[in-house]
Amino acid sequence: MLTYSFENIGSDTLYEHLYKSLKQDINDGVLSPDQKLPSKRSFAKNLSISTITVENAYAQLIAEGYIYSIPKKGYYVSRISNMINAPNHKYRFDRCEEYNYADKNDVASDIINLASNHISADSFPFSIWSKLIRDVISNEKDSLMKPLPSAGSFELRNAIAKHLWDYRGLDVSPEQIIIGAGTEYLYSIIIQLIGRNFIYGVENPGYSKIPKIYNSNSISCEYIPLTSCGIDTDVLNKSNADIIHISPSHHFPTGIVTSVGTRHEILSWANNSDSRYIIEDDYDSEFRLVGKPIPALLSIDNNEKVIYMNSFSKSLSSTIRISYMVLPKHLMEKYNEMLSFYACTVSSFEQSTLAKFISQGYFEKHINRMRNYYRKLRDLLLEAIKKSDLSSRCTILEENSGLHFLLRISTDKSDVKLKEDAMKNGLHISCLSDYYMNPKHSEEHTIIVNYSSICAENIDLIISKLHEAVD
Amino acid sequence: MLTYSFENIGSDTLYEHLYKSLKQDINDGVLSPDQKLPSKRSFAKNLSISTITVENAYAQLIAEGYIYSIPKKGYYVSRISNMINAPNHKYRFDRCEEYNYADKNDVASDIINLASNHISADSFPFSIWSKLIRDVISNEKDSLMKPLPSAGSFELRNAIAKHLWDYRGLDVSPEQIIIGAGTEYLYSIIIQLIGRNFIYGVENPGYSKIPKIYNSNSISCEYIPLTSCGIDTDVLNKSNADIIHISPSHHFPTGIVTSVGTRHEILSWANNSDSRYIIEDDYDSEFRLVGKPIPALLSIDNNEKVIYMNSFSKSLSSTIRISYMVLPKHLMEKYNEMLSFYACTVSSFEQSTLAKFISQGYFEKHINRMRNYYRKLRDLLLEAIKKSDLSSRCTILEENSGLHFLLRISTDKSDVKLKEDAMKNGLHISCLSDYYMNPKHSEEHTIIVNYSSICAENIDLIISKLHEAVD
Repeated sequence: MLTYSFENIGSDTLYEHLYKSLKQDINDGVLSPDQKLPSKRSFAKNLSISTITVENAYAQLIAEGYIYSIPKKGYYVSRISNMINAPNHKYRFDRCEEYNYADKNDVASDIINLASNHISADSFPFSIWSKLIRDVISNEKDSLMKPLPSAGSFELRNAIAKHLWDYRGLDVSPEQIIIGAGTEYLYSIIIQLIGRNFIYGVENPGYSKIPKIYNSNSISCEYIPLTSCGIDTDVLNKSNADIIHISPSHHFPTGIVTSVGTRHEILSWANNSDSRYIIEDDYDSEFRLVGKPIPALLSIDNNEKVIYMNSFSKSLSSTIRISYMVLPKHLMEKYNEMLSFYACTVSSFEQSTLAKFISQGYFEKHINRMRNYYRKLRDLLLEAIKKSDLSSRCTILEENSGLHFLLRISTDKSDVKLKEDAMKNGLHISCLSDYYMNPKHSEEHTIIVNYSSICAENIDLIISKLHEAVD
Repeated sequence: MLTYSFENIGSDTLYEHLYKSLKQDINDGVLSPDQKLPSKRSFAKNLSISTITVENAYAQLIAEGYIYSIPKKGYYVSRISNMINAPNHKYRFDRCEEYNYADKNDVASDIINLASNHISADSFPFSIWSKLIRDVISNEKDSLMKPLPSAGSFELRNAIAKHLWDYRGLDVSPEQIIIGAGTEYLYSIIIQLIGRNFIYGVENPGYSKIPKIYNSNSISCEYIPLTSCGIDTDVLNKSNADIIHISPSHHFPTGIVTSVGTRHEILSWANNSDSRYIIEDDYDSEFRLVGKPIPALLSIDNNEKVIYMNSFSKSLSSTIRISYMVLPKHLMEKYNEMLSFYACTVSSFEQSTLAKFISQGYFEKHINRMRNYYRKLRDLLLEAIKKSDLSSRCTILEENSGLHFLLRISTDKSDVKLKEDAMKNGLHISCLSDYYMNPKHSEEHTIIVNYSSICAENIDLIISKLHEAVD
C-alpha cells in the first residue's frame, strides 16, 4: 500500500500534506491512470491518520480532477493526457520589498517639470474631500454596495447637469450624461456607439494621444490643420472625416479659441450628413483667466450633432479619474439599447463624494480659488520673465486661458537641442513642435509653459535655468 | 450710435449685459458684418458707463470671434457665415430636484433578489476602509497628485503580486500586473494588445456579457460547450478560436471546476500555435467553501499562454471598480511599447487604500470572515430547503464553491413561467437556461441561487415564495 511520511511537513496540515504527496505522485507518473487508490479507511489506518483526513485529501483531488470515484467501488487515478510539467515556483519573498519603483514613477524629483499638467498637492481640497468621503461611508452604506446604472450615479449626473447649466449655460438632462473613468475610456464608448467604419478628424497640432487611441481601436484618423480661428473648415469640408474631435474653447497646445464664425461653419459641416458628429473636448474651460468662459459649441447646436466631453482632471486632479460626456438624446437612446450592459467604471464611493462636492458648493469655491491662484502664479511668472534678461528675446502668447501659455524664444538652437539643454539644467520642457504630426510644419522655438504644478518660490530659478538652456 | 438700456439687467454685471446685448444684435443681424463699432471711449460716454466696461465686453466678443479689431482703426463686426439660430435655453431648475431616480436604480426594494450577485452592506469593511482612506489622504498628498504609471500604482501591484503568491501560489512579478476599472475595461485592453483579427472562444453556457463586449469591439466569438470537466476540448480543437475566455476554477453559472486533465489539454491546444491565448477569469476563487482553493491554470502554464484576470468585485464589492490582470512577460513588454500611453483608469486614492488594505493583512482577514459568513448562510439555506416541502422535488448541485448554487426543481412550468410567478411573489430569480446561447440546449428548471446578498432572517420567506412559484 502507498505510504507517505508525515514528518517534517512544515506548516501544512495532515490533509494538505497527503493531498500534495498524492498529486506529486500522479504528476510524476508514480501513480498510473486508472490505478485504484486505497480505501479511505484502510489508507487512514495504514498512515495512522484519521479517515476524515484521507477523505478531505481525496475530495480536493476529485475537485481538481486528479482522481475520480466510482460509487461503491472506490477511488481511481484520472487519465491526464498532454501533461506538461508545471513550472517550479520559488517566490523570492523579498522581491516586492526590494522592488524600486520610485525611479520609474515619474521624473526625478529634483527636476522642475514644465511639460506636465499635474497639479501640486497644495491645490487639492484634501480636508473637504476627506470629510465628504467619511460622510459618504458613514451614511450611505447600503447605496454604496448597490450596482450603479451603467451611465453613472444619478446623484452625480444631477450635480453635473446643474453645474453645466450654472457655469456653462448648457441645458442638458442628467439622463444624457455618462460618467466614465477618464475621457480615454469614454472615447472607446463613442467608437462602439457610433461604429468603427468612420474616419475621425483630429486637430494638428494636438494631443498625440487622441489619434493613438483611435488607431489602437482600428479607426483611421485624418489630421485637420488649425487657422487662428480654430480648425480649418476649408480643409475639413474637403476631408473624408465623418467625426471630428476638437477643443473649441481652448485648443491645446496653441491656446486658440474657435471663433463663433468657425463654430457655425463646423456645425454646418456636421449638419450636411447624418453620420457626422463633433466631439467637443472642453477639458479646461473652467480656467479662462480673463473675462467670461467661452460658451461651449454644444450651446449653439440644435441638431444633436455635438458630443460634449469634460473631466475633473484639470479642475480637481487627473489622478481622480472621473470624466463625463453629454450625448445627444438620440445617441443616449442608442447607448441605453446597445451598451448599457457595461458596468460604470467609476467607484460609487468617489461618485458619491464628488456629487456632494459639487452640489454643496465646494466645487464652485474650489474653481474660483484655483482660478485666482493660477492667475497670480501666471502673473508672477509673466512679470518675472518681463523683468529678466530673457525678455528681449521672447514673446508671450495665449496667456489668458488654461494652465499654460506659449513662450516664443529667439535662439539658434533646434527644439531638440533646447529641450536637451534644459533637461541637463534640471528643467523638463516641451515645445509646440512636439504636438505636430509633421514637426517640419511647426514653427520652432515655441515653448509650452505648463505652470499648474510649479511653486512661486521657484520662478526665478526656472527663468535662470531656461535662460541658460537658451544661450 | 448704438444704445442699450442698463435697467433691469438682473444679476448681470454692466459688462456682461453689454456683451450679451451686442452678441444678440450680431446674432440677429441688427449689426452687419464688417460694420464699425463705436470706439471704446465714445461708446462709454454715450452709455454712461466706464471705458473699462466697454473694453471688457469688446475683449470677450473678440475672444469668442463675434468682433475683430484693426490696430489703430477700431472694432468691427465679424462675418459669421452659416449662422444657425441657437436653441433657446430655458433651464427648469427644479428638474434635478424632481428627478426621481430611486425606481430606475435597481429592483424595487421589497423584491428579494436571487439573481444579483451584489453584496450586502453588512459585509463590506466600512470602518477599516474609512480609516485607511483617511490615512492615505493625510499622509500621501504629494503622491496622490502624481500621475500613476499606466498599469497602476506599484504599491498596489506589489500587494497583489504578494497576495497571489500567498493565496494562489502564483509566482508573478508586479511588473506583469495591470490595474483597471473593471474586467470589462481590461478586455478592451486585451483586444487592443492581441489584435482584432482573431476569433474568441467563449463558454456556453456563460455570462452573456462576455461575447457582448467582444462583439461590441467588432470581434467574432465562437461558443464552446462545456462537459462536466470544463470546456469541451474536442470542440475547441475543431473550432476556429484563437483566444479562449474561460473560468476554470469555478464556472458561472454551472459551478463546474475544470479538471486537471482538461487543463492540460487546453494548455496543449494553446501551445499548438503562437497566436493562441487563454484568458483565465478567476473571478471568485477566494470563495471555495470546502477544501483548498483550486490552483489557477496560470500555475501550470510554462509557455506564456495564460492571461490571468481577477477583480475585487466578489471579495470586496463590485461598486469599488478595481480589477487586474497578469500578462505573460512578452505581452507585458508589448503593452509597455504599444499601450502605456493610456492613463490608468483607477483613482490613485482608491489604489493606495486597497494596497494598504491588502498589505496590512485586512484583506486576508476579510476574505476569511466572508468565507465563514457565506458558508453559514449557505448551510442555513440548504438546511432550510432540505427541511421544507420543496425538498422532495429538488436537487442541490455545485454548492461547494462561489456564492451561488444550483437548485434543480421538478415542475411542469416552463422557466419563463417559473420566473414570472416568482417575480409576482416578490422573488427575482434566474435560471440556467438564461445563460445558454441557445436555451433549447439547456435543461430546464434549474434555478441559480445567488445568496451573497440575502439575509438569514429571510430564508424561510424565500423558500415559501419559491414553493408558491413552483406549484
